Amino acid sequence: MIKAAIAGATGYAGNELVRILTNHPDVEIKALLAHSYVGKRFDEVYENYRDINNMVCEEMNIDKLADECDVIFMALPHGVASNVVNDDILKRTKIIDFGADFRLKDIDIYEKWYGVKHEGRDIIQNAVYGLCEINREKIKQTNLIANPGCYTTCSILSLYPLVSEGVIDLESIIIDAKSGVSGAGRGLALSNMFDECNESVKAYKIASHRHTPEIEEQLSYAAKCNITLSFTPHLIPMNRGILATCYAKLAKSLTYDDVRNIYEKYYGNEYFIRLTKKGIFPETRWVKGSNFVDIGFKIDDRTGRIVIIGAIDNLVKGAAGQAVQNMNILFGLEEKKGLAFAPIFPA
Amino acid sequence: MIKAAIAGATGYAGNELVRILTNHPDVEIKALLAHSYVGKRFDEVYENYRDINNMVCEEMNIDKLADECDVIFMALPHGVASNVVNDDILKRTKIIDFGADFRLKDIDIYEKWYGVKHEGRDIIQNAVYGLCEINREKIKQTNLIANPGCYTTCSILSLYPLVSEGVIDLESIIIDAKSGVSGAGRGLALSNMFDECNESVKAYKIASHRHTPEIEEQLSYAAKCNITLSFTPHLIPMNRGILATCYAKLAKSLTYDDVRNIYEKYYGNEYFIRLTKKGIFPETRWVKGSNFVDIGFKIDDRTGRIVIIGAIDNLVKGAAGQAVQNMNILFGLEEKKGLAFAPIFPA
Amino acid sequence: MIKAAIAGATGYAGNELVRILTNHPDVEIKALLAHSYVGKRFDEVYENYRDINNMVCEEMNIDKLADECDVIFMALPHGVASNVVNDDILKRTKIIDFGADFRLKDIDIYEKWYGVKHEGRDIIQNAVYGLCEINREKIKQTNLIANPGCYTTCSILSLYPLVSEGVIDLESIIIDAKSGVSGAGRGLALSNMFDECNESVKAYKIASHRHTPEIEEQLSYAAKCNITLSFTPHLIPMNRGILATCYAKLAKSLTYDDVRNIYEKYYGNEYFIRLTKKGIFPETRWVKGSNFVDIGFKIDDRTGRIVIIGAIDNLVKGAAGQAVQNMNILFGLEEKKGLAFAPIFPA
Amino acid sequence: MIKAAIAGATGYAGNELVRILTNHPDVEIKALLAHSYVGKRFDEVYENYRDINNMVCEEMNIDKLADECDVIFMALPHGVASNVVNDDILKRTKIIDFGADFRLKDIDIYEKWYGVKHEGRDIIQNAVYGLCEINREKIKQTNLIANPGCYTTCSILSLYPLVSEGVIDLESIIIDAKSGVSGAGRGLALSNMFDECNESVKAYKIASHRHTPEIEEQLSYAAKCNITLSFTPHLIPMNRGILATCYAKLAKSLTYDDVRNIYEKYYGNEYFIRLTKKGIFPETRWVKGSNFVDIGFKIDDRTGRIVIIGAIDNLVKGAAGQAVQNMNILFGLEEKKGLAFAPIFPA
Repeated sequence: MIKAAIAGATGYAGNELVRILTNHPDVEIKALLAHSYVGKRFDEVYENYRDINNMVCEEMNIDKLADECDVIFMALPHGVASNVVNDDILKRTKIIDFGADFRLKDIDIYEKWYGVKHEGRDIIQNAVYGLCEINREKIKQTNLIANPGCYTTCSILSLYPLVSEGVIDLESIIIDAKSGVSGAGRGLALSNMFDECNESVKAYKIASHRHTPEIEEQLSYAAKCNITLSFTPHLIPMNRGILATCYAKLAKSLTYDDVRNIYEKYYGNEYFIRLTKKGIFPETRWVKGSNFVDIGFKIDDRTGRIVIIGAIDNLVKGAAGQAVQNMNILFGLEEKKGLAFAPIFPA
Repeated sequence: MIKAAIAGATGYAGNELVRILTNHPDVEIKALLAHSYVGKRFDEVYENYRDINNMVCEEMNIDKLADECDVIFMALPHGVASNVVNDDILKRTKIIDFGADFRLKDIDIYEKWYGVKHEGRDIIQNAVYGLCEINREKIKQTNLIANPGCYTTCSILSLYPLVSEGVIDLESIIIDAKSGVSGAGRGLALSNMFDECNESVKAYKIASHRHTPEIEEQLSYAAKCNITLSFTPHLIPMNRGILATCYAKLAKSLTYDDVRNIYEKYYGNEYFIRLTKKGIFPETRWVKGSNFVDIGFKIDDRTGRIVIIGAIDNLVKGAAGQAVQNMNILFGLEEKKGLAFAPIFPA
Repeated sequence: MIKAAIAGATGYAGNELVRILTNHPDVEIKALLAHSYVGKRFDEVYENYRDINNMVCEEMNIDKLADECDVIFMALPHGVASNVVNDDILKRTKIIDFGADFRLKDIDIYEKWYGVKHEGRDIIQNAVYGLCEINREKIKQTNLIANPGCYTTCSILSLYPLVSEGVIDLESIIIDAKSGVSGAGRGLALSNMFDECNESVKAYKIASHRHTPEIEEQLSYAAKCNITLSFTPHLIPMNRGILATCYAKLAKSLTYDDVRNIYEKYYGNEYFIRLTKKGIFPETRWVKGSNFVDIGFKIDDRTGRIVIIGAIDNLVKGAAGQAVQNMNILFGLEEKKGLAFAPIFPA
Repeated sequence: MIKAAIAGATGYAGNELVRILTNHPDVEIKALLAHSYVGKRFDEVYENYRDINNMVCEEMNIDKLADECDVIFMALPHGVASNVVNDDILKRTKIIDFGADFRLKDIDIYEKWYGVKHEGRDIIQNAVYGLCEINREKIKQTNLIANPGCYTTCSILSLYPLVSEGVIDLESIIIDAKSGVSGAGRGLALSNMFDECNESVKAYKIASHRHTPEIEEQLSYAAKCNITLSFTPHLIPMNRGILATCYAKLAKSLTYDDVRNIYEKYYGNEYFIRLTKKGIFPETRWVKGSNFVDIGFKIDDRTGRIVIIGAIDNLVKGAAGQAVQNMNILFGLEEKKGLAFAPIFPA
C-alpha cells in the first residue's frame, strides 16, 4: 500500500482527492493536513464522509510526513510548497503539488505574474509538469510533480497536437474558457456567494489570469518557439466543469479528416482523452465526476479558423484525478487504476 | 460473472444502473433494452459512456433474455412489467423491477391509485418489496423484487424504527418531501423544461401521489395496523436528491437518547444508513452519488412532535443503487459490493 | 414627494427597496445608510444601478435623518433599531423597521428567542405589526411599523382566514417552508457559498427558528387563544421565493367551496392576495419580482387534513415590497402605488 | 392609447412583451394570438398574470388586426411573418417582427442560412433593422421593423463603434457568446430539459448559427466593407442573460482612453447603453430584467488584442424591450417610456 498524506485536504481539490484515494485499491491515507481545521474531524468538515473517514485534521509537519509517507499531495496556496519542499524532503518522499510554485520553469515569469519572490529556485529544475499524456516519461523519473492547473489542463490538451504539428498560426490563438464555481475554491468571498454567481455569467481576470503563462510555456515547448495567446476565463453558475473554446487560424488548408488524424496520432491510445465524433462537441456534463478530457473541433471554411472545444471536470482531471494519475505513473501502477470510473449524469 | 440485462436503460434510473454496473466487479451487462432507441448506440444517447460502452439498444425479448441472463432489471412505466413477467420467466431468471407493479400487495389499492387493471395477480405474492434493510431475509428467497420508489425508500426508512416501536401517534404522520428534477424522468414535459423549474419550487400531486399507498402499506406492516398519512412531494431546482421532512406526535415522552437508541437498534449495523450526530441534520449534498440514507431527528418539546429528516440520492438508493443492493443479496454477494463509493461533493 | 432614507441599504432587502422606490412616483430617496460601505458609491456595491443611482453610502445619524426625512426604512440586524428609535424620533418621522425588534409584543418571548435584552420597552406598544392585509387600520394610526418577516408573511396570510374562522384544529398546525438563498442575507457565510447550497436542499433551525413565535403571536390574535405550532424552514437552491406548505386537521367537515368562501371573505378584495383556482397550486416562479401572495389549498378526505400552499417573493412581499405597501398606507397613498408590477417569468 | 396585438404571445419573448406592455402607460393590449393555445386564457398559460390579465388566446387574423390595431408585434417562427405581411397590411398598421424574415437585406444569404425560400421579397426593402441606437432615424420612417436577434443586439452594439472608426482589424473578429436557456424558446426539446442543461455548459451551432450573417451584415454597413467573423454561441445553465466576449486585433496602437472616447462618442448620450468603468466588466446579473446593454473592454498589450464584453437580458433588450423601444420611436414617444426600470438583483 502506498502511504499518502494530503496537505490542504479541506479545500475542494483536497476533498476530491480524499474521495478518489478512498476508493483506490493501492493507497492508504495516512494524514490529512489542514491548517484552519486542526483538531477537527474531517467528516465534520465534509459530511459526505460520515461513517467513512473519521480522521482528524492535523497541522503539517513536512519532516515527519517525509519519513512516514510515500507521497505527499499538496493542495495549498501558491508560495507555500516552495517554502517547505527541498532536496532533503525529495530524497525521502515524493511530492505532487497542486499549486503553481513548480509549474513555470521561468522564475522571472512566475514572479511577474504572481507578484511574489520564488523560494524554490534550487529545486525547480527537478520539477516535472505533470500533464500525464504529454510528459509521461519525464514523470517517471522525478520525485516532484507540478500538477497542472484546471484551465491549463483543458486548454493545453485541446491545442497540443495542432501546435506540435505546426498546422495553426501561433499568433492567432484565443482560448475562451468557462468554469464552474468550485474552481474558485472554498475560501469565503462575496463573489462566490450563491446569490452573487447564480443566474449570471461573467468574464474575469481578462488578459491577466495566472494560468496564461502556464499555457503559453507548455505550448511553446510543443511549438519549439515562444507563443503568446489570449486567455479569458468565465464563471458559470454550476458546481463543476470547464469548457475551453479555442480559436486559431489554420496555417494551411486542412480537411476534417486531416485534423482528426493529427488528434488520433497524439491521443488515439490515451484512455483519458476521448475525441468526439464529427458534428458532436464536448459538454461538461459528459465528463462530470470523471478523469476524462473530451475534445472535438470544427473547421470554419468561411473564416479559415478552427474551433476546438475541450471539456473536463475541473476537480478531477483538472486537479485531484490528474494528481492520482501522476501518482500511478510515479509508482509504476496501471495509469487508470482507481480512476476508471464513468462520468455521472445527470449530476 | 452475473449476466444482467437492463430494460428501460435510457431513462435516468436505467442510465444510472448502467453506470453502477459498469464498475461492479461481478457483473457483465449483456443487453440494453430501450423501445424508443432501438438500433441506437447507448453512448450516443448518453455521451458520458463515450469510449466506455458501445452497446446498441435493443427491443425487449423477455423470453430470450430469461434464457441468457441471470437477472433482468426493469426500469419501465407501470403496467409493463406485470404484463411480461410470469411464473415461467421467474423460473429461468431473476427480475428486479423498478416500477410500481409489484410493490403493493393489495391489488385493489393499486388499481385505485394507478387507474389501470393489474395484470400480474398470479405472481404478485411471489414479489418481495426490496427495501433491503427491512426485508433482507425475504429478498434472499425470491426471484421477483419490487424495487421501492425513491420517495418511499427515504420516507419509510426515516420512520420505520419509530413506527415499529410504537412511540409515535400513527394518525399524526406527515411527510413533506422535496425531490430534484431527475425524479420526474427523462420524458419530454413542459413542466420539466429548464426555465419552467429552475429558480422555483412547487408542491405537486398534493394528497394524491402514488407513493402514498406504498409508504402506508409498508409502515402498516411495521405498525401491525393500518396507517393513513399525509404525503406532499415538492419539486426542487436541482438534478438529484430527496429530502423527506417527517412530522409525528410522540406517543409518549422521550429524550433524544431514547430515540437515538431506537434508531441504533434498527440501523446500528447497517452500512448504508447513517445517523447524523445530535444537532446535525441530513442534507442531500452529503449523499449525492452514493447509496447512503442519512437520517437525523429533533424532538420539539414545545409541540410534542418529533421531526425526522431523511436524505437520499433518488437515482442511487432511490432506484439503481438499491436495485444493485438487491441483486447483491439475491446472488449472495457482499451487500455493498460495487456500491461502497463515497458521495461526491460539490457536485 | 415623500423623503425617504434607507438604513441598511446594502443588504439584499435594502437593495430591493432601493429598486422599488426608484420607480415609485411619489418618493425621493434622500439617503442610503450602510455602516460597512460608508463613502462608497451605491452603484459600486450594486452595479445594477450603474448610471441610475450615484448616491454615496453614509453612516446613520438618526437625529439628522428624523429632521430631513418623512420616513426611515431600517433593514438592520436585530437589536439596532430598538436602540436608536425613541419617542422623540417618532414625533419627527415615521419608521418602517425590517428587523424583529418591534414585531413581538411579548418582550419576554423576544428575549428568550433572540437571546438579547430588548432596549425599546417604552415604545414597543406604539409599534404596529405591518401585515397590511390584516392590520391596515392600525397601520394608519402609527409612526412605527414592524415590517413582518418573510416566512411569517407567507405563513400567516396562508393560515389567517382558517384560524380566524375556527375551522382548523389549532394544535395541529405544521408549516413546512422553503426559501431561496437571498433570505439568508448578503453576509459572508460558508453555508451560503455557491457550491455549498447549489444542488442541495436542507432543513435548518428545526423547531427553533425565530420566525416561529412571530407566526404564533399573530395567529393567536386571530384565534383569540394561544397557538403553538411547528415551523421548519428549508434552504432551496434558488435566489428568491418562499413556499409555505401548511398542514392542519379540519375541525369540522368542510367542502372545497366552504373553504374557498372563507378565503374569499377575507381576501376577495385584496389586490396583492391571489387565490389559485381549484386544482392549481402556488409556485414561487409565478410571484417572482412582485408583491403578490398566491394561496391555494387542498382538502384531503383520507386524513381529514387541509394542505394550504402560500407563495411569495421573499424580498418583495416578504420585505421591501410590503414595506412600501406600509409606507403607502402610512402616507394615505393608493396602497398599490409603485407596486402594481406583474411578476417576471422566466427569471 | 396605442392599440397593440401580440402574435406568438405564449413564447418567452411574447410573454415578456405582455409584461412590459402591461406596465406601459400609453399602450392597450387588444389581442393575444397563439396558434397552439387558441381559446385558452393567457393567465392559465402564464400564471404570473393571475388576476392581472384574463385575455383569451386567439388565432391570428392579420387582416382584422391591421384594422383594429396600431401596431402588431410578431414573435413567430421564421417564415411566418413574411408570408402574412404585405404592402396592404403595412398601409394600415405597423409591424414589429421578432423573427428573422426581414433582418437580412440580402435574400440569397437569408435563403442560404435558413434553408427556405423567402416569401417577402417585395417588402423587404421597406424593413428597417430595429437596432434603436444605430438606426433610430430610419426607424422613424418605416412601418416595418425587423427587431434584432438577442445575440446580434449584444454583439453588434459591443463592436459597432470600433468597427465604424476602423480601429480594429476586420478579419480578426471573434465573438464568443453565452446565453441563458430562455433564448432557446419554450418549445419542447430534450436538450432544454432541466437535467440536460443544468450543471453543464456547451457550445452549439459552431460556425453555423443563423445570427452570424445578421451580425456580419450590420457590422459591414458600419465598416463600409464586407466582414466575415467567427461567432460561437454557448448555452449556460441560467434562465436569462447574454454575455458576448468579443476579440479583435487593434489596427493601431490605442490607449484605454482612446477607446473609451470612441465609445463615449457613439454611446455617451444613450440611456440604454452603459459603459462600465475601467477595470469593471459587464455581468449578466447587473442587467437582468432591464433594457440596458452594459459594455466594457480591456486592451491586452501582450497580444495586441482588445477584448470587449457586452451584456444584455436576452428577453428584454434582446427581444421584447427593444421591440417596445422601437414602438416608442415609431409612435414619437419618449424612447425609454415604460422601459426605464432598474435591473432586478438578485433574481
